[in-house]
Amino acid sequence: MKKDMAEQTPNGNKVSLPVIKRLPKYYRYILDMYSNGVVKVSSSELARMMGTTASQVRQDFNCFGGFGQQGIGYHVDVLLDEIAKLLFSANSLNAVLIGTGRLGRAISGYLSSEARGYHLMAAFDKSPDEIGKKLQCGVVVQNVSNLSDFCVQNHPDVAVLCIPRSAAQAVAPVLVEAGVKGYWNFSHYDLSVDYEGVTVENVHLGDSLMSLGYRVRNL
Amino acid sequence: MKKDMAEQTPNGNKVSLPVIKRLPKYYRYILDMYSNGVVKVSSSELARMMGTTASQVRQDFNCFGGFGQQGIGYHVDVLLDEIAKLLFSANSLNAVLIGTGRLGRAISGYLSSEARGYHLMAAFDKSPDEIGKKLQCGVVVQNVSNLSDFCVQNHPDVAVLCIPRSAAQAVAPVLVEAGVKGYWNFSHYDLSVDYEGVTVENVHLGDSLMSLGYRVRNL
Repeated sequence: MKKDMAEQTPNGNKVSLPVIKRLPKYYRYILDMYSNGVVKVSSSELARMMGTTASQVRQDFNCFGGFGQQGIGYHVDVLLDEIAKLLFSANSLNAVLIGTGRLGRAISGYLSSEARGYHLMAAFDKSPDEIGKKLQCGVVVQNVSNLSDFCVQNHPDVAVLCIPRSAAQAVAPVLVEAGVKGYWNFSHYDLSVDYEGVTVENVHLGDSLMSLGYRVRNL
Repeated sequence: MKKDMAEQTPNGNKVSLPVIKRLPKYYRYILDMYSNGVVKVSSSELARMMGTTASQVRQDFNCFGGFGQQGIGYHVDVLLDEIAKLLFSANSLNAVLIGTGRLGRAISGYLSSEARGYHLMAAFDKSPDEIGKKLQCGVVVQNVSNLSDFCVQNHPDVAVLCIPRSAAQAVAPVLVEAGVKGYWNFSHYDLSVDYEGVTVENVHLGDSLMSLGYRVRNL
């Protein structure tokens, strides 16, 4: 199995990446139900919302211990609580932003205002125009030449890469060497190809716009 | 076949969504090769870069007529030209932005400065604080109550949704009725579930952060 295709659960089971990728969607649907006062939900109702099968839902939940009695339906509050425990933790993940151009600023705003469970510790850029400026969230942009020292001293969990491919390729060894394990990657350089033991979530905004363009023109 | 799983090519063939989704990645790799002076490339070299098989590459290209002689390798310039023709067109796609909060502003900046083939015509919000303000790209934010009239008169190709799920659900019938066919969707409401004949690219930033968090904590 490819190194990034499975992760350990707290109790040592392997959970496959597709299951992990479905967790946020379960969370969103179940949060909606909870907010609307729904008390119980069956695996087939969940399956309908998720666009999957009831047996897939039960299989997914069994990866994490099952989340309660399936015969009489799941308790929405229990489900919500259990899935939230999986997705978030009491301690926020500390993040550093690399690249404070237009996209980087946007993403820093999103991360510091709308994303649960993350704390933006610091931001870095190489441009003299950016260094010393303050982001909307209050973080002051540092010279990327400080990145290695900063990471060694402050142990960020996650780096957010809002830089071009070549810059990402150049900064990757610094981050990996300093022990950064997680990457929210908006660049076109996928670190997981060259480095073992890192976790990368790629977001390719440009790719989705290109496919959309093709599809709209060929409707 | 599900309605959004296949699209017509200009010559009437069906091209599956996974193939369409791979096109931007081909484009990026081939543009890189072209920029680096590479003249010819074989399907197996392409396959290695793409993380797939040579036969998959040939099959993908055959959906669009083959792109030249595979026995002696593909000409990089021809490939680049043909794939660019598929992904972009002489006429930009006209886009409207719905929601000019932090994310919407970020995305509008990306769309108007970094995305090839799109033109941001107009932006809409419901907040009195936003209406009348100018985005960095020069577009002035309009009241979302003008959206329907605007779309009927100006026929945008694509709507970019940077609003919460409930707002997206409320605005969807207005856009669909006005003939908007393409959606770059950052909301959690997937229009393609309720409307036929629309093309939706979902970007779930929050979901990717949640999966990343789970994976980093369970490494």
